Amino acid sequence: MTDQVFDGEFWFLERHTPDAGLALKVREHIHTRRSRFQLIEVFDTFEYGRVLTLDRLIMVSERDESAYHEMLTHVPMMIHPSPRRVLVIGGGDGGVLRELVKHDCLQRAVQVEIDREVVEVCREYLPSIASAFDHPKVELVIEDAIRYIKGVEERFDVVIVDSTDPVGPAVDLFGEAFYRDVFAALSSEGIVTCQIGAPIYDLDQIVRMHGRLQGIFTEAALFLTHIPTYPSGVWTLGIASKGLSLSAQPSDVRYSTLRDRLNYYNSDIHRSSFTLPEFLHRALKGS
Amino acid sequence: MTDQVFDGEFWFLERHTPDAGLALKVREHIHTRRSRFQLIEVFDTFEYGRVLTLDRLIMVSERDESAYHEMLTHVPMMIHPSPRRVLVIGGGDGGVLRELVKHDCLQRAVQVEIDREVVEVCREYLPSIASAFDHPKVELVIEDAIRYIKGVEERFDVVIVDSTDPVGPAVDLFGEAFYRDVFAALSSEGIVTCQIGAPIYDLDQIVRMHGRLQGIFTEAALFLTHIPTYPSGVWTLGIASKGLSLSAQPSDVRYSTLRDRLNYYNSDIHRSSFTLPEFLHRALKGS
Repeated sequence: MTDQVFDGEFWFLERHTPDAGLALKVREHIHTRRSRFQLIEVFDTFEYGRVLTLDRLIMVSERDESAYHEMLTHVPMMIHPSPRRVLVIGGGDGGVLRELVKHDCLQRAVQVEIDREVVEVCREYLPSIASAFDHPKVELVIEDAIRYIKGVEERFDVVIVDSTDPVGPAVDLFGEAFYRDVFAALSSEGIVTCQIGAPIYDLDQIVRMHGRLQGIFTEAALFLTHIPTYPSGVWTLGIASKGLSLSAQPSDVRYSTLRDRLNYYNSDIHRSSFTLPEFLHRALKGS
Repeated sequence: MTDQVFDGEFWFLERHTPDAGLALKVREHIHTRRSRFQLIEVFDTFEYGRVLTLDRLIMVSERDESAYHEMLTHVPMMIHPSPRRVLVIGGGDGGVLRELVKHDCLQRAVQVEIDREVVEVCREYLPSIASAFDHPKVELVIEDAIRYIKGVEERFDVVIVDSTDPVGPAVDLFGEAFYRDVFAALSSEGIVTCQIGAPIYDLDQIVRMHGRLQGIFTEAALFLTHIPTYPSGVWTLGIASKGLSLSAQPSDVRYSTLRDRLNYYNSDIHRSSFTLPEFLHRALKGS
């Protein structure tokens, strides 16, 4: 069940599981390309604007991407007192970079993306998301992040793992070895965030990843954001720190420089996003 | 786009808007009945168990209904210091009643449902939800709630408006006149909750309803819950009080009597559910 014609209309259907999915009516199938790594497509949908899919899974839509990129970026950036150097793993659409360069304290952002063609497609078809690749503070490295992080000598205040799901090229980005290397690449107060899954569909994976982060870092936590085009509409992000307390309060001064340019994140959402529904809370305690 | 066969499989497709929807694979279309008011159906789905639809819109699924019923019920019940008499408007599936009778302080719950056949269907096909209709504290009244509330002399500590969406029979349950009658039917510290819509799809309606509640009640607020089978996966609930502060903290003692029987609600979720993403916050301020 992928593209379908109903009543003469063209719909894209993403199966979230074999038995449930999201259906979006498509105005135009704008682009298709098969890179060395994956099938890259862009659809213009009526409800969510342009949508990037990799191997037929929705990565971003123009309409709701802010809730993902803002939370994955600003939560660690606001917990760290002075994040200067940031490493982005994956994130070929550029959404995390666009959020990072809103922080005046940022000195340098390195983005390591395995697939050059994802970046090319997003620069061409999703310019509102891929808007910061030419920013003077940004360096784009096309390389396998697993290899990059092993050899890197630079130390980062924040690492953001904006990977695809743990199938295909991204599977090792969910592994213990990779997070040990991330730990080593963080400065003494460093923080990492990553995307994990939907509470209702990926509970085991969420519990496993949380345990993995807890085993490696000083502190680890989960937080949630609301992304209508992701499976179930709510997504779990992971966060872990080397020295800092994750309950550090976001700075009001720094937040005031961002707030007019944000659509989803605010200081209250920052704090409340760490609150988990009872079934998720219980699953973590049982682990 | 409703029932469809793809690749030899039977799917139920609910359009959330004309251009986006949820697709669920169906094991069996268990029941169909047309009442005086609406088309009532029950599907057995692979992912979400049994699903009740009214006029082809999903009302509840066995797998994710707890996040809706627990939040709509326990948030007002835990804010009120001693809720004894409760009125439920709509809610023919019985989920709110099932949650209400978990509170030892409850003395009497009156449920006013317009469509007897919804109750019949749910008692037969969704017994885990419709489990409290025979409880000694419960009285079921089959009547139009608009008329009921105008004439009622009894005063309630909590009113829970578990309506369908504002199309068809439920349209007046979103109106100002109805909420003036609810206000009158509340005891001096009374609280009302209602379901409103999806932040991303129903922003105007959410802002309008919030303004309406603010105009009538002492205090009004919105809170959110995560229901994967509802449009966008996140749903906005409204709450308003006659005298009480809505930021009253849930009682630990009373919560401890409930917690083992809850799947979604906990005291932290209670507090954090009132935090709204920036776009919703901004829309309310602009109103």
